[in-house]
Amino acid sequence: MRAMLKGIAASDGVVCGQAYRLVEPDLNVERRLITNLDSELNRFHQALEAAVSDIETIKTRATKNLGADSAQVFSAHIAMLQDPELIAAVEANIKDKHINAEAAIADVTTGYEATLQGLTDNPYMQERITDLHDVTKRLTGHLLGVTLPDLVLIDHPVVVVTHDLIPSDTVSVNPKYILGFITDVGGRTSHSSILARNLNLPAVVGTQNATKQIPAGETVILNGTRGNVIIQPTVDELATARRDMQERVANQKRLATLRHHETTSKDGVGVMLAANIGTASDLPAVLENGAEAIGLMRTEFLYMDADQLPTEDEQFNVYRQVVQSMAPRPVVIRTLDIGGDKPLPYLKTKHEDNPFMGERAIRQSLAHQKIFRSQLRALLRASAFGNLRIMFPMIATLDEFRQAKAIYDDERSKLTTAQVPMGKVKVGMMVEVPAAALLADRFAQEVDFMSVGTNDLIGYTMAADRTNQDVAYLYQPYHPAILRLVDRIIHAGHAAGIPVAMCGEMAGDPIAVPLLLGMGLDEFSMGAGAVLKTRELIGQLNAHDLQSLVETALNSASTSQEVITMVQAAVPGVLQK
Amino acid sequence: MRAMLKGIAASDGVVCGQAYRLVEPDLNVERRLITNLDSELNRFHQALEAAVSDIETIKTRATKNLGADSAQVFSAHIAMLQDPELIAAVEANIKDKHINAEAAIADVTTGYEATLQGLTDNPYMQERITDLHDVTKRLTGHLLGVTLPDLVLIDHPVVVVTHDLIPSDTVSVNPKYILGFITDVGGRTSHSSILARNLNLPAVVGTQNATKQIPAGETVILNGTRGNVIIQPTVDELATARRDMQERVANQKRLATLRHHETTSKDGVGVMLAANIGTASDLPAVLENGAEAIGLMRTEFLYMDADQLPTEDEQFNVYRQVVQSMAPRPVVIRTLDIGGDKPLPYLKTKHEDNPFMGERAIRQSLAHQKIFRSQLRALLRASAFGNLRIMFPMIATLDEFRQAKAIYDDERSKLTTAQVPMGKVKVGMMVEVPAAALLADRFAQEVDFMSVGTNDLIGYTMAADRTNQDVAYLYQPYHPAILRLVDRIIHAGHAAGIPVAMCGEMAGDPIAVPLLLGMGLDEFSMGAGAVLKTRELIGQLNAHDLQSLVETALNSASTSQEVITMVQAAVPGVLQK
Repeated sequence: MRAMLKGIAASDGVVCGQAYRLVEPDLNVERRLITNLDSELNRFHQALEAAVSDIETIKTRATKNLGADSAQVFSAHIAMLQDPELIAAVEANIKDKHINAEAAIADVTTGYEATLQGLTDNPYMQERITDLHDVTKRLTGHLLGVTLPDLVLIDHPVVVVTHDLIPSDTVSVNPKYILGFITDVGGRTSHSSILARNLNLPAVVGTQNATKQIPAGETVILNGTRGNVIIQPTVDELATARRDMQERVANQKRLATLRHHETTSKDGVGVMLAANIGTASDLPAVLENGAEAIGLMRTEFLYMDADQLPTEDEQFNVYRQVVQSMAPRPVVIRTLDIGGDKPLPYLKTKHEDNPFMGERAIRQSLAHQKIFRSQLRALLRASAFGNLRIMFPMIATLDEFRQAKAIYDDERSKLTTAQVPMGKVKVGMMVEVPAAALLADRFAQEVDFMSVGTNDLIGYTMAADRTNQDVAYLYQPYHPAILRLVDRIIHAGHAAGIPVAMCGEMAGDPIAVPLLLGMGLDEFSMGAGAVLKTRELIGQLNAHDLQSLVETALNSASTSQEVITMVQAAVPGVLQK
Repeated sequence: MRAMLKGIAASDGVVCGQAYRLVEPDLNVERRLITNLDSELNRFHQALEAAVSDIETIKTRATKNLGADSAQVFSAHIAMLQDPELIAAVEANIKDKHINAEAAIADVTTGYEATLQGLTDNPYMQERITDLHDVTKRLTGHLLGVTLPDLVLIDHPVVVVTHDLIPSDTVSVNPKYILGFITDVGGRTSHSSILARNLNLPAVVGTQNATKQIPAGETVILNGTRGNVIIQPTVDELATARRDMQERVANQKRLATLRHHETTSKDGVGVMLAANIGTASDLPAVLENGAEAIGLMRTEFLYMDADQLPTEDEQFNVYRQVVQSMAPRPVVIRTLDIGGDKPLPYLKTKHEDNPFMGERAIRQSLAHQKIFRSQLRALLRASAFGNLRIMFPMIATLDEFRQAKAIYDDERSKLTTAQVPMGKVKVGMMVEVPAAALLADRFAQEVDFMSVGTNDLIGYTMAADRTNQDVAYLYQPYHPAILRLVDRIIHAGHAAGIPVAMCGEMAGDPIAVPLLLGMGLDEFSMGAGAVLKTRELIGQLNAHDLQSLVETALNSASTSQEVITMVQAAVPGVLQK
């Protein structure tokens, strides 16, 4: 049925195409008595082969994107499906009870699961339960004739419709076939949105019920600039959308020519354009989009996507890969930002009433130094392979920074004693707590660099949780209060002779960029997908002229809307929205 | 056993005395077959009389402190205990089943309760269930020979040991007999602490297990300045504590002479010392301590201590009482600050992951205008009886203030049309969101007054939930970042020609007072118990000399500790801690 869904504009661009539902299908199994045993055994073996073939495809793709180590789990899945004991048990069940293959599989795996669950002192066996679930689902899917969807299996151009995406989905996305994303939940700064912008794919998030309303294969137009989705568009709508798509492709071609350019304003002020990444798998997009550095590597996914704490060596390998790939360009790696709001499944964390204002990030690192020290050692070892900078998140007081720095110094001197090779490392801080922004002049005396984390800085300054829809209206990057803080940080840095970067969403926002350039921001770090657009925009701006715009916005604006109007008047024609 | 408990220093002063456990005793009832019916009936009637007598005492006290209206619930309790039907039913149960009175009461009330619970469409009957519980507990207590503790029943000097206090406990406290409080939970800004400071009683909170470790009647020394409790002190310790108590009494006598004085610094700068209150029952303490105004009346308790939304008339009566009692002195009443962190039992509120950063206070009022408009009408009607100022909490943007003000104007004009008498009212804002503090110059153009709410302002600026023990170290009122914000607000107000007040804990803090006086704060509002001490302190300070202290703290201090050291050096001898 023709319909229009409203959502949040998460990543710019318009695309049209067929919907691919990344939604787990109904896998409820009916128990039937069967008469033709041979035919049922045959069904079972065909499903087994199809499931193994699926997993082979996924494994190949994972090996390419993530390396052989990460793909090992899929080998385990295949081995499980080829286990003679499991196959014999299912066959026996079909034959003895005269039941259908789906039911036989359910019976056998329920028994296996019970056995595994009994082995509570064996974590290896506990993990096998998850594997068994995954494998059984895929097998049952083939028997029921429903395909278990997987990003990796997509082999023709589609618009993905799903409840939500997780960071690790990045590795499964083939930009050749995936046109864009539509999700039920999330906001502009949720993982789904960040992922889409990184990949430069249009996205509408937070539609509430896209997965309910969009059938598989339905034609949709996804408008990631306006934040809506048309289901069963008219011929005219489709024609317009196709024109938009062509324009987009042309834009991308034009922008691609800027890939190897430096970033310089019209009047010759040079800045650095960097990219934010979450995993090593984001590196190809960084290089493809001509980012000059990594301005923020988040390290949470290393910890969150695992079943246990990563070892120092596991971390070292990832950090080295990133540092080495980018060398001699700088790579800023942020130490762990976990805590009450991003708990690790294998670490006990206390419940907190307000986890955003709780023991997270550097607070957690200082309270539980073992994890922190292991990360610092891994980082220091990786520093030998390129240009590494270490950044501490959520610093609120100088005492915290000094403590963290002292632990860093301690680990460094131990490694020096052990004659471990290390490179020069700059140690800086994320400015995302209002107190740190207000005291930036004092911090600037002691840190090597500062990077403004706007997502959290805006949240705390407005006292609004950006993930809470009821107060989302208060998440205002252009609010004069925010601009005043950012300006203060930049000037404090420059007065002390250190560079100031920004690594929040705001750094790639076309309304904010003229203001930040006018303030003198040194480094803009953003999702890789925004780098070329921002480079083009900066090339059209006159940095010195923008200083008076900044003055007016800081001293005379009272609301976000006033700031937007000022920017639009000052740089007409440059901004699309 | 002799022991020392560590806790949080919540309200200054040392006292020693016997412990009174305000802890609900074990009221489990055993069922026994009895042989002497007459004696059992007699036991029942004696317990009835004792329970009625308890409630009469409580009722008398409540009438005196809260007014006849609020004491009505106790009349209902007495009526319930004297209900012939209930008495007859219990008697019949004792006689028919030959069971003990406790069991008979349990049987009868369980039956009543089931009947009441069935009447789900009758809220009056639902409330009676709570009454029935209260009454039964008291009755059973007398039969079991255990006293149901109640602050009101205390008739000799004791140190109260309890899990936690609630705001409404204020009315039950007789300062003649209650020496101080020891609680298991809470921090310096929890309700128990605020209550203790309001009453000027020493308190140690957050001891974790005082109620487990301190037996009834045990001698304890409570040190509210250092935050510890000695159980079974030595003779020497007792002697020292008694000296401290005598000194305290002498101090209080000296301070009492300042009751009717104005508040003026040594060099003649006058400021206003006001009190914060939660209910009308705090008024006597306000007048007794010589506060010159109410700088903050919280209105949450009106809503939280009730079973349903208070009517406009109920609110009006309370506001009028406060405004009238203080007239012509000003009374600042803050509109409702409820939301995710302080839910109302009778209003459905969504779960929020970070309620401190959620839809609370003015955000809630603007989203659910019915409650807000009813409160504004009640306030406007009360304005005819004195000098009322209305203050909006949690304002983050000018848009929010303008919306709230427009609703106020709308209600005012409706009342004007209806010829309802009203007084002049100033409409101002609480500055507690960092964004508002940073933009105070713009706000000052549109509001009649500003009052700095330091409890929340510190929380958001440091990104730390003050109720979370793990990050309590970040709740730093003297942090240079906080001082810079407060200074900015004061100067913004003065530049626009409006007064600036402070109504957080910080306003009565002896380290902060010299800084605030130096900055030019106009009005200090605090728990009534701190008013006289602060008046004395300000009288010893030289406001003009303090300006250079302020300059140094704002421009050269990097940490809270540096600020404390600076203040102690600048005003030696004046500060005890």
